[in-house]
Amino acid sequence: MNSYVIYLAPALGILGLVVMAFKSAWVSKQDPGEANMQELAGHIADGAMAFLKAEWKVLSIFVLFTAALLAYSGTIHTVNGKEIHSSWVICIAFIIGAVFSATAGFIGMKVATKANVRTTQAARTSLKQALKVSFTGGTVMGLGVAGLAVLGLGGLFIVFLSLFAGLGVNQVKTAIEVLTGFSLGAESIALFSRVGGGIYTKAADVGADLVGKVEAGIPEDDVRNPATIADNVGDNVGDVAGMGADLFGSYVATILATMVLGQEIKVNDALGGMSPILLPMVICGLGIVFSIVGTLFVRIKDDTSSVQRAFNIGNWASMLLTVAAAYFVVMWLLPDGPITSRITTFNKTGVFLAIVVGTVVGAIMSISTEYYTAMGKKPVLSIVRQSSTGHATNIIGGLAVGMKSTVIPILTLAGGIMASYYFAGLYGVAIAAAGMMSTTAMQLAIDAFGPIADNAGGIAEMSQLPPEVRERTDNLDAVGNTTAATGKGFAIASAALTSLALFAAFVGIAGIDRIDIYKANVLAGLFVGGMIPFIFSALCIQAVGKAAMDMVQEVRRQFREIPGIMDYTAQPEYEKCVAISTKASLREMMMPGAIALITPVIVGFTFGPEVLGGLLAGVTVSGVLMGIFQSNAGGAWDNAKKSFEKGVLINEEMIYKGSESHKASVTGDTVGDPFKDTSGPSMNILIKLMSIVSLIIAPYIYGIGQ
Amino acid sequence: MNSYVIYLAPALGILGLVVMAFKSAWVSKQDPGEANMQELAGHIADGAMAFLKAEWKVLSIFVLFTAALLAYSGTIHTVNGKEIHSSWVICIAFIIGAVFSATAGFIGMKVATKANVRTTQAARTSLKQALKVSFTGGTVMGLGVAGLAVLGLGGLFIVFLSLFAGLGVNQVKTAIEVLTGFSLGAESIALFSRVGGGIYTKAADVGADLVGKVEAGIPEDDVRNPATIADNVGDNVGDVAGMGADLFGSYVATILATMVLGQEIKVNDALGGMSPILLPMVICGLGIVFSIVGTLFVRIKDDTSSVQRAFNIGNWASMLLTVAAAYFVVMWLLPDGPITSRITTFNKTGVFLAIVVGTVVGAIMSISTEYYTAMGKKPVLSIVRQSSTGHATNIIGGLAVGMKSTVIPILTLAGGIMASYYFAGLYGVAIAAAGMMSTTAMQLAIDAFGPIADNAGGIAEMSQLPPEVRERTDNLDAVGNTTAATGKGFAIASAALTSLALFAAFVGIAGIDRIDIYKANVLAGLFVGGMIPFIFSALCIQAVGKAAMDMVQEVRRQFREIPGIMDYTAQPEYEKCVAISTKASLREMMMPGAIALITPVIVGFTFGPEVLGGLLAGVTVSGVLMGIFQSNAGGAWDNAKKSFEKGVLINEEMIYKGSESHKASVTGDTVGDPFKDTSGPSMNILIKLMSIVSLIIAPYIYGIGQ
Repeated sequence: MNSYVIYLAPALGILGLVVMAFKSAWVSKQDPGEANMQELAGHIADGAMAFLKAEWKVLSIFVLFTAALLAYSGTIHTVNGKEIHSSWVICIAFIIGAVFSATAGFIGMKVATKANVRTTQAARTSLKQALKVSFTGGTVMGLGVAGLAVLGLGGLFIVFLSLFAGLGVNQVKTAIEVLTGFSLGAESIALFSRVGGGIYTKAADVGADLVGKVEAGIPEDDVRNPATIADNVGDNVGDVAGMGADLFGSYVATILATMVLGQEIKVNDALGGMSPILLPMVICGLGIVFSIVGTLFVRIKDDTSSVQRAFNIGNWASMLLTVAAAYFVVMWLLPDGPITSRITTFNKTGVFLAIVVGTVVGAIMSISTEYYTAMGKKPVLSIVRQSSTGHATNIIGGLAVGMKSTVIPILTLAGGIMASYYFAGLYGVAIAAAGMMSTTAMQLAIDAFGPIADNAGGIAEMSQLPPEVRERTDNLDAVGNTTAATGKGFAIASAALTSLALFAAFVGIAGIDRIDIYKANVLAGLFVGGMIPFIFSALCIQAVGKAAMDMVQEVRRQFREIPGIMDYTAQPEYEKCVAISTKASLREMMMPGAIALITPVIVGFTFGPEVLGGLLAGVTVSGVLMGIFQSNAGGAWDNAKKSFEKGVLINEEMIYKGSESHKASVTGDTVGDPFKDTSGPSMNILIKLMSIVSLIIAPYIYGIGQ
Repeated sequence: MNSYVIYLAPALGILGLVVMAFKSAWVSKQDPGEANMQELAGHIADGAMAFLKAEWKVLSIFVLFTAALLAYSGTIHTVNGKEIHSSWVICIAFIIGAVFSATAGFIGMKVATKANVRTTQAARTSLKQALKVSFTGGTVMGLGVAGLAVLGLGGLFIVFLSLFAGLGVNQVKTAIEVLTGFSLGAESIALFSRVGGGIYTKAADVGADLVGKVEAGIPEDDVRNPATIADNVGDNVGDVAGMGADLFGSYVATILATMVLGQEIKVNDALGGMSPILLPMVICGLGIVFSIVGTLFVRIKDDTSSVQRAFNIGNWASMLLTVAAAYFVVMWLLPDGPITSRITTFNKTGVFLAIVVGTVVGAIMSISTEYYTAMGKKPVLSIVRQSSTGHATNIIGGLAVGMKSTVIPILTLAGGIMASYYFAGLYGVAIAAAGMMSTTAMQLAIDAFGPIADNAGGIAEMSQLPPEVRERTDNLDAVGNTTAATGKGFAIASAALTSLALFAAFVGIAGIDRIDIYKANVLAGLFVGGMIPFIFSALCIQAVGKAAMDMVQEVRRQFREIPGIMDYTAQPEYEKCVAISTKASLREMMMPGAIALITPVIVGFTFGPEVLGGLLAGVTVSGVLMGIFQSNAGGAWDNAKKSFEKGVLINEEMIYKGSESHKASVTGDTVGDPFKDTSGPSMNILIKLMSIVSLIIAPYIYGIGQ
């Protein structure tokens, strides 16, 4: 049985990539529209690639440096009398992880910058066709991420197993330990993509709006605005590549953490005790299959059908099918009777129930996010009302909504931790996260659809196509705003559960049996950890401010020095704005990135694993809270502003765009932009990255501070 | 030796109260000015008393209900096989604690509402005399709080010791356990005063400004504004009584927690092992003496002298003298040779060094607060610059400053925890807090001076006194803004250290030997605890919003229905506005108050002490962070606005009041108002109250969840 189960996951990963290739080819075959549309799309695609190339340049230095460090540290084999099983192989795993994550981002960005203009063209025919093109584009991203992750993890696991066979080390344990390098590689790319991408997209957005809309009085997405291409590139960089890398990282880290904990479980199964280790990979592999099935449900009859409903059906179909399949896989792979880990005993039904818990946690967190950020619901309406008394009350309203929105997710998370632990111990907490992440392909497909539709609308506007085209893309874009919100809820939930799984794995590898916050040092670690998300957020927010100022200067300069822009006789220098966003984002993310990477190393080697554990707990709790607070406040402000664009009823009077209340709501939206697209989502990366770095250094800090 | 050392602390407390009585009499003897000034001051005093009376009404119901609950639960003597030494005496301690705290608030408010108008009158002569009157008023508050606290704790301890003698219980342990009731009583009043007072003062302030300044175009503190009296009452209610109750609670809780931990230490001293228990009381008693000495240093030569410098000299004098005295007290009381607590061994030099650590932590946290909120320093200047690009960038700037300002305090706190633990174990952490709190009388004197000066300025304005009077009171008021900021830093530091001390005491009493966040339930508790400051803040912020709206309606109504107001022919109905603020504040604080009081009870009895410990750690970390973030962001916004009132240089151009940039800065200030005066300082009460409630229920939840 061993012989083929271990090949199942990578095989399913390859299946996902094959389907992806077909879907990608289908998108490429679609009509890209007229020459001017293609030219604009070309600018966006070039800008996106320019960012990727610049990012890769910085990244390759970082990756090579870190790989060298890993290879060097891997040569030490005994620390404090304990044999270290890490090896220089970890640096290979790290590089492959980075390359796979970058490749997933590349694929997603490539197809998104093809699908955008083809969606615009399809929207000239029907909403149905436009949805098909944009969603297929999103599907390519989803399958690429999930397929590469499962193939990478599963394939490397097989390679490492055979590599370490007969070397006198614990073959399975060592293979899993070097796999952490793959996860670190993936999460490092995520840092660059999510944080850098977040700074990029908001610098361009704010810069384009401040000069274009406010000073020059030209509409959004106007072809005369020098920053408009950078703005559209930003959607791809931040929302496609950034979100993709974030979820790629969560997906890989979750599976890995479950494998680490699975390895500690002693079972008498048909796979020589390997079943708890292989289970998360197989479930995620099946999740790919059922995500593909789920995409078949995403279809609408005609222009009046609900796009949101189609997504919901597809999403629930893939989730329910995966959970059902998980039941059979758990029953098939795991042995009957009690399963014992280091401290708890459970059985295979418990493992299945933990998976169910994970799925439910993810669903509730997405629904809660939607409630707190959706137009027409109580929270957003309260901000709308408070906008009528001015800028300050709009801000106060949004901050209060964001703070309040932490309650349901945190109670859900806390309940999920307790329930999954009750069902299957720490392994249960990790497999719950894996269960939630198993339909990542589908989640990401829905998520990546949004920015494609957003771009399609931008191209329609810039190419001055007939209004019904823009109407159709606006319809898609509106749905995209909701899916973006729920997607953020899913990303935070996944980061939180992943960090918990990594946290549990860390404690095992670090050789400690508790993290006692009654100890003064550990409590101090908890305090410092809790503070890090605050300084990280502050740095991200300030970075957007600085980069946006650079952009404003450049746009003003072009309007001043290139006189033909306004009457369409001269083309703005789009690439200069693209370069500014690119450069600023890569420069500004160094400091927060360094904090995330270096803090655990310093604390771990100075104070030992238990204090580091306290630090991690602090970062995770505070990071999840700040992530939810900032993302939801930003989302709610955004939709409060959008409510005025549609028109809202305040004190029995319809209030529209251009009113004083609307202006107040724009203030909230501008504050919310870096909140929801930069600092908020960056929290995911922060907590995961610090956990993974800790996991990697865990064997080396064994015994310090005891 | 026992015979007199135990009487030392209450004797020093009485000394403080005697000096207070003299100072209070001196203030009363000063000239209260002309009839119209006295009339206005009378309105303010009446309003303040109206609030106190309304508060006491609600409070007495709450106190009686809680006392009954305590008395009832005190009759149970064995829970889970462990004998509970609590007794119905705790309900007496609780009532006395509440009465003492309320009395301290009453004294402070009474003298503040006398000192305000006398300061105005004194300002007609000289700055020197005005400072003397206002600071003497503050000193009365400081000595009242510290004197009552030391007298109450020390006196009750003697009474309880003799009460439990010969009853077959551990006399000392039981006496200290019932003393927790005194602390709970004190902190419950603090909840009402600080949270309720915070809502009161901001509802009045925002309401008065929105209609008076913005709609009717009359200046601040104009006698025609119906809400102006409520606004001036608010300064007394929030900044005098609220701050006083907050520090009274911290002061009592810190001493108590040190006593609890001291009781666990076995020493062979001349006091029958009582020296570690009596030490914190004696040091705080001496702190009163040296605070009195310190006040003698607060004097200026003439109108051109620096008031801030006078405060600094007085403050440092009392701190250094107290630390020096602490050295001799420690050497005198504690025995030579090793001192052993449950898990650590240290000596008396270590105990002294821990006291030094506490003083240093308090000083650094105050200095950091001042840096991040002071005019002319980098953080406030960055907000000033960002105001020139609009409302949104002003808000973003303030939020970033607030978040960044958490770094130094948290690193200081973490370092302080580690260092004081290193020197003297958990007892060291508690005695560090006690060392920091020992000069509370002086801190509070400087702190309460601010609102008195603020009120004096208001009365000068309302009575239309000559401009040089207002100039002198403005001079004092400006210093008051800085002392308010550093006072807030001190209050947060004290709350944080107090909570840590209570946390340590809780673990001992609850009979657990660790709080292991590696356990799923405890981690879940940590998450939920971390979330509570977010929902608590949201509720406070929203409460201010709601109450301010009520106030706006009432002021508009009076302007509409009482036609003579504007030409001074009719007097506004001040008392109606006072009633609105009073009612709203008491109504709106119920929900957050209930969360603080009930959550630990539910969690403790459902999941047991270890999960409750996780919850407390989460609340403390997250609460300290949110407290610093909100208080400092609010303070920085306030001073950014004030910078424009003075005039600031942006891009080589002087910008003043009335400019677009100034308007943007007003938005930040309005957002910051509830941040810095309601939700931010409320965090202190939240974390302390939850810790004390946990300490009280600790004996009853012994063994649950194990």
